Amino acid sequence: MPFAKPSRSIPEVSGTSYPPPHDEPVKHRAWRALGDAFGLTQFGVNLVRLEPGVWSSQRHWHAKEDEFVYVLSGHPTLVTDAGEERLSPGDCAGFPAGVKDGHHLKNDTGEMVEFLVVGSRIPEDHGEYSDIDMVFLPGRGGYTRKDGRPFGLSGRFTARKRDRAPEPMRGAKPGWAEHQNKRSGFRVCAALRPE
Amino acid sequence: MPFAKPSRSIPEVSGTSYPPPHDEPVKHRAWRALGDAFGLTQFGVNLVRLEPGVWSSQRHWHAKEDEFVYVLSGHPTLVTDAGEERLSPGDCAGFPAGVKDGHHLKNDTGEMVEFLVVGSRIPEDHGEYSDIDMVFLPGRGGYTRKDGRPFGLSGRFTARKRDRAPEPMRGAKPGWAEHQNKRSGFRVCAALRPE
Repeated sequence: MPFAKPSRSIPEVSGTSYPPPHDEPVKHRAWRALGDAFGLTQFGVNLVRLEPGVWSSQRHWHAKEDEFVYVLSGHPTLVTDAGEERLSPGDCAGFPAGVKDGHHLKNDTGEMVEFLVVGSRIPEDHGEYSDIDMVFLPGRGGYTRKDGRPFGLSGRFTARKRDRAPEPMRGAKPGWAEHQNKRSGFRVCAALRPE
Repeated sequence: MPFAKPSRSIPEVSGTSYPPPHDEPVKHRAWRALGDAFGLTQFGVNLVRLEPGVWSSQRHWHAKEDEFVYVLSGHPTLVTDAGEERLSPGDCAGFPAGVKDGHHLKNDTGEMVEFLVVGSRIPEDHGEYSDIDMVFLPGRGGYTRKDGRPFGLSGRFTARKRDRAPEPMRGAKPGWAEHQNKRSGFRVCAALRPE
């Protein structure tokens, strides 16, 4: 029984829990959770695949978590406050926690893009989306508008989760979401892995 | 001014602070500190290059830090308690904190090996080497034998540091090493990045 794994042997999943219409450009992003496959908990390492036209996420920053990307194949476009730049295999970028310069990668080419993304796992993490009226809440607690107003029910499950029953939030205690909702008076969207 | 960096533009360093003779198989390992180049502090991401015959480290485990490797090129041999296995590009492996199964990569081929290694940065981390009589201490405090006895002065600086004056330990307060040495009665070796 080998200890290592070919990354292609780790199941690929796809989707997003963003509420519409923000889910649209990212809902076909696909990733393999490489770090999780070995039981790592302190950081995540995902191998992300973007078909032409697909974005890694909405442009965002993290208040508490460092993040890092390394391009394996293709030519994704990195967007930050500084503008757009076309990357190549071997290029990398890092985003320290708390720096409010939103980033994402999008595939504006006709070829597949693959990259590794590493992110710390800090329960208190939260952050904002630079180009849209949306924030993500601590504890993987989902999304609201920047003034705290919730998104509608229709945004609760999208893409691959659309036809399935709601799943509990990862790491949340039973009843946590209901408790939070009662406390805040808001209904928030469940997040698989907000970015 | 682009935000991202070609990984080759980040300076490559090499060496080890292992005391002899344990420095011998690893002293030509070379790495680029990709995460540090962007100011990340919660985890390190290093692009490691092993010429034929070179090891990544002595076989070791971490008490507090998760670790992850992803092979970019070549065919390193992963050694764990389960034995040896030859890896290929795209293979990956993760080592959760506290699992006392030592690991390292060695290049037993005639071609270059390159891989990414990710590790948490936890000051309390310490660990042991599986195949030799050596441990590494918390706070990047260097190495002793497993019974706590220090290595000799001759082991203090090796490889690229051999001809240079001692540098302070990264992250250590001035006088910390002297204080520790007085307290323990031992003289420990300074560690660049114990693994």
